[in-house]
Amino acid sequence: VAKVAPSLSVGFARALRERRTQIGISQEELAFQAHLHRTYVSQLERGLKTPSLQSIAGLASALGMPAWQLVRAAEEGEGGS
Amino acid sequence: VAKVAPSLSVGFARALRERRTQIGISQEELAFQAHLHRTYVSQLERGLKTPSLQSIAGLASALGMPAWQLVRAAEEGEGGS
Repeated sequence: VAKVAPSLSVGFARALRERRTQIGISQEELAFQAHLHRTYVSQLERGLKTPSLQSIAGLASALGMPAWQLVRAAEEGEGGS
Repeated sequence: VAKVAPSLSVGFARALRERRTQIGISQEELAFQAHLHRTYVSQLERGLKTPSLQSIAGLASALGMPAWQLVRAAEEGEGGS
């Protein structure tokens, strides 16, 4: 797990930022709609925090997608630079 | 999120138990392979805890599937009784 976690957090960070900017909303708006703190969303987008399934579901809902699609995007974005 | 979390935890609990029993391994074996504590896996299977993305990835890996598939199974099992 120790090996998986950092890169998956980075993959999640990328996926989150990508989807949010596609929709054209700010971190603040996303946080509000997902019932999360703006600071936490900012940390997630920088790969500094690992989200809980609950947070993933809230963010995905705010982004108009099921949680599994956001996780798949995170796993796909896990590799590379 | 308050509304989403309990049912998604239950969906995850179901999905986890279902996949684990399909493979035919104990909670203890799953916990060992996922580098998690046996008590934590037991709590997840009873829907008492919400997993982190890191835990989901470790469990999915131990179950031989990508994390997103486990999350999808959790979301599909969210409804019903």
